[in-house]
Amino acid sequence: MEFTVKQIATLLGGEVAGNETLAIRKLAKIEEGRPGDISFLSNLKYEPHLYTTQATAVIVDRSFQPRKPVEAALIFVENSYTAFTRLLEEYHKLRSYARAGVEQPAFLGDGTQLGEQTYRGAFSYIGRNCRIGNNVKIYPHAYIGDNVRIGDNTIIHTGVRILDNCIVGQSCVIHPNAVIGSEGFGFAPQSDGTYKTIPQLGNVILEDFVNVGSNTTIDCATMGSTVIRQGAKLDNLIQIGHNVEIGKNTVIAAQTGISGSTKIGDNCTIAGQVGFAGHLNIANGTKVGAQSGVGKNVTEEGTAINSSPAFGLKESMRSLAVFRRLPDLDRRLNELEKKTEK
Amino acid sequence: MEFTVKQIATLLGGEVAGNETLAIRKLAKIEEGRPGDISFLSNLKYEPHLYTTQATAVIVDRSFQPRKPVEAALIFVENSYTAFTRLLEEYHKLRSYARAGVEQPAFLGDGTQLGEQTYRGAFSYIGRNCRIGNNVKIYPHAYIGDNVRIGDNTIIHTGVRILDNCIVGQSCVIHPNAVIGSEGFGFAPQSDGTYKTIPQLGNVILEDFVNVGSNTTIDCATMGSTVIRQGAKLDNLIQIGHNVEIGKNTVIAAQTGISGSTKIGDNCTIAGQVGFAGHLNIANGTKVGAQSGVGKNVTEEGTAINSSPAFGLKESMRSLAVFRRLPDLDRRLNELEKKTEK
Amino acid sequence: MEFTVKQIATLLGGEVAGNETLAIRKLAKIEEGRPGDISFLSNLKYEPHLYTTQATAVIVDRSFQPRKPVEAALIFVENSYTAFTRLLEEYHKLRSYARAGVEQPAFLGDGTQLGEQTYRGAFSYIGRNCRIGNNVKIYPHAYIGDNVRIGDNTIIHTGVRILDNCIVGQSCVIHPNAVIGSEGFGFAPQSDGTYKTIPQLGNVILEDFVNVGSNTTIDCATMGSTVIRQGAKLDNLIQIGHNVEIGKNTVIAAQTGISGSTKIGDNCTIAGQVGFAGHLNIANGTKVGAQSGVGKNVTEEGTAINSSPAFGLKESMRSLAVFRRLPDLDRRLNELEKKTEK
Repeated sequence: MEFTVKQIATLLGGEVAGNETLAIRKLAKIEEGRPGDISFLSNLKYEPHLYTTQATAVIVDRSFQPRKPVEAALIFVENSYTAFTRLLEEYHKLRSYARAGVEQPAFLGDGTQLGEQTYRGAFSYIGRNCRIGNNVKIYPHAYIGDNVRIGDNTIIHTGVRILDNCIVGQSCVIHPNAVIGSEGFGFAPQSDGTYKTIPQLGNVILEDFVNVGSNTTIDCATMGSTVIRQGAKLDNLIQIGHNVEIGKNTVIAAQTGISGSTKIGDNCTIAGQVGFAGHLNIANGTKVGAQSGVGKNVTEEGTAINSSPAFGLKESMRSLAVFRRLPDLDRRLNELEKKTEK
Repeated sequence: MEFTVKQIATLLGGEVAGNETLAIRKLAKIEEGRPGDISFLSNLKYEPHLYTTQATAVIVDRSFQPRKPVEAALIFVENSYTAFTRLLEEYHKLRSYARAGVEQPAFLGDGTQLGEQTYRGAFSYIGRNCRIGNNVKIYPHAYIGDNVRIGDNTIIHTGVRILDNCIVGQSCVIHPNAVIGSEGFGFAPQSDGTYKTIPQLGNVILEDFVNVGSNTTIDCATMGSTVIRQGAKLDNLIQIGHNVEIGKNTVIAAQTGISGSTKIGDNCTIAGQVGFAGHLNIANGTKVGAQSGVGKNVTEEGTAINSSPAFGLKESMRSLAVFRRLPDLDRRLNELEKKTEK
Repeated sequence: MEFTVKQIATLLGGEVAGNETLAIRKLAKIEEGRPGDISFLSNLKYEPHLYTTQATAVIVDRSFQPRKPVEAALIFVENSYTAFTRLLEEYHKLRSYARAGVEQPAFLGDGTQLGEQTYRGAFSYIGRNCRIGNNVKIYPHAYIGDNVRIGDNTIIHTGVRILDNCIVGQSCVIHPNAVIGSEGFGFAPQSDGTYKTIPQLGNVILEDFVNVGSNTTIDCATMGSTVIRQGAKLDNLIQIGHNVEIGKNTVIAAQTGISGSTKIGDNCTIAGQVGFAGHLNIANGTKVGAQSGVGKNVTEEGTAINSSPAFGLKESMRSLAVFRRLPDLDRRLNELEKKTEK
């Protein structure tokens, strides 16, 4: 993909100072700009880079006045940061939606309906009786079982596994090697010490605008559905147990694990490597610090918790501060004991 | 799959009150039952749902007497919970064993022997000189290296990787994208600060009835075997280092990691996100709390440990309780010091 | 692969006592040796096994004198441990480089250049405009996107995903199901509580001699590159966020997570299940204990830290020791209070 400085200025509604005909191929930070790149200057802390950058063009605010000569072409716009973000998005869209058609060999099961403008990569597998929406992109090596439904504009990256009967909404993105709908971890202990597998017959429902990170696993429900609500964002290597429910617009960072049947509310923010016990209810807007271990319900909305086991964030920070001084506390206690013995 | 209420009652040895001819297609919880579903009532806490459920049929205990009119057909059996569990299992079996034959293209290496009634999905890969037992199901995109043996009735799900020379027992289930037998993490530091790879030439042995969760990784031994003993159950995203041994019927929850050469005994219960150092011996029946960090041997059977670093469960609970009151302890110590100074 | 005892002795520059014509097929520990195996005796603690082993041959030091009759053939060399390690490496090389050519079907995009002596497994996918070096091995089901460069002698195992524009150096090993270059976790909160995806347009650069473990995920940079420097070794199930930089010869154990834009120095040693916050700078030679949570910069080279949140290793060990005695401290404080009240 290649555009001229002028084409980009037109898209952004900006004016050019410098050579409009130069070719732009890539976006870059101003301090890393190379010939063919376009960059931006918003925070004036970075202004010195403007005079040394090798980028071909730089987007700046209309209010900005250079204090030295600039090699790069300048594109003046109302808000350079917003304009650059828009470029990023346009560029991203071009890349994401570039693929279409089917690469052979690809497997398509009987009774499956495909929408319009889908992409199916080589070695992709779609089972029987699925309904795949318009503009869905299914990358190479993706596996989709039987009776799966996928909404419009969803991207299924390479190596993703979506098992039988799962439902994926519109405009979702499932990153490479994520597993959706594998059997939950349910075993009934027997009197001889062995375990009997409890069949897991439910499915997983991802509502619209859900993101699932690479190598994340979401188990199907024993019966019914494990549900990830609209707009929730899951990072990489997360474990979601059977019958869990994640609320709308809740964001979960990498390597967090949520045990079976726990319900996380809407608009929660959960940091990395957090663990949740099973069968909990976590109120809307809960914030959980990294590496916390959550073993109890959170009933009040907007609560911030931390530590393992988790309790109030402020309280935990105070306890952790004293923790570092424990050897000192111990010593002082010893001294006091000696004193009072006398 | 569709059955009549009568067919199901006959299977369960029960009697029907209501319309025997209705069609059943799915199992559901009584509070989520929809037309075409069968459900059950065991715990009388859920009795109110019996009078409102849309399920087509409900299994109840022979001793149960409805207090209001019921829309659904009732199937009376000795123990409704046991009967429903049996239905679950039958349904599960029907689903699991439905697939057979081979979907093309599939890769089969020279010298490999396949048992009877195997299933090989499209894009599955089986290397050279393997022995695959009867009724083994190898799903699409599964990879099996050279010289691998797999016992009867084992299920290898989509995207599983089983590397050269590994041995998998009978009736195992390996969930999507698990990796069995990749090279362990062994590097010898050199005098110039670089590391030299220590070749990892051993394999992994899974005995019979082992379950391995999605995206779990089990490294091969440096020499000899990493061994997962009969009936052990591993959840998702677990890391098992080289030369580890996991005992019979030991259950390990998601995201736990076990470092090289550690031996875990039989019938242990290990919660999620636990870490084990290398070269440890953990006695039979040990119970480890979530997020614990185990750095020492456990020599006494049936010990419960917790915390990071881990020590006795009870002791750790007491320490954790005082931890939350540390700012208060600190304050009291300050006061005492002031008092005794006077 | 089969060699005679004599062939191996010649390779190692050793002398044989016993039958030189016996066939060797495998390497084993002396206590696990079976007919056809070769083993070694270095640490004399293991000497008793020499007199009972079933191994066909054992490598021993030239200075060693058996005190009893030995069944196995003995190969005398200067240093038995070094000699055995060399055998391990030779054996490993034979196995690793055995595969060559292409198994069909395999997908090769337009404009991609392949080096000499490459291996492409069945169902491997290489996108458009890639440059693949000499002797690169790409196993079945591996996915390589568009515009990817891979240096000579690199091994890409089964199920690995390398996304568009990534650069992999020479002599790297990427283990099964690792994901390189997937989109980072970047979302801008909107006023209505939803999140907007921040496009991630950068790539990942792995320099030479880098190892990446199974199911590890390395996100691409928002712009620019996520960089893993020469000789760094990453274990399984690790998460590397966008724009992270890992220094030369740094070793990271399994299940550790590093948040976006953090820079780890050279020659660091990071244990398992560690978490790093984002935007940190970690000095060269830092050592981090297992399950630590690193929330602050480390500015001094060679620092050892531990605990969550992490602080000095020694200090943390002292605090953790007192932590276990907290109930006792509490009790003593109570007693002192009673005493001073009187």
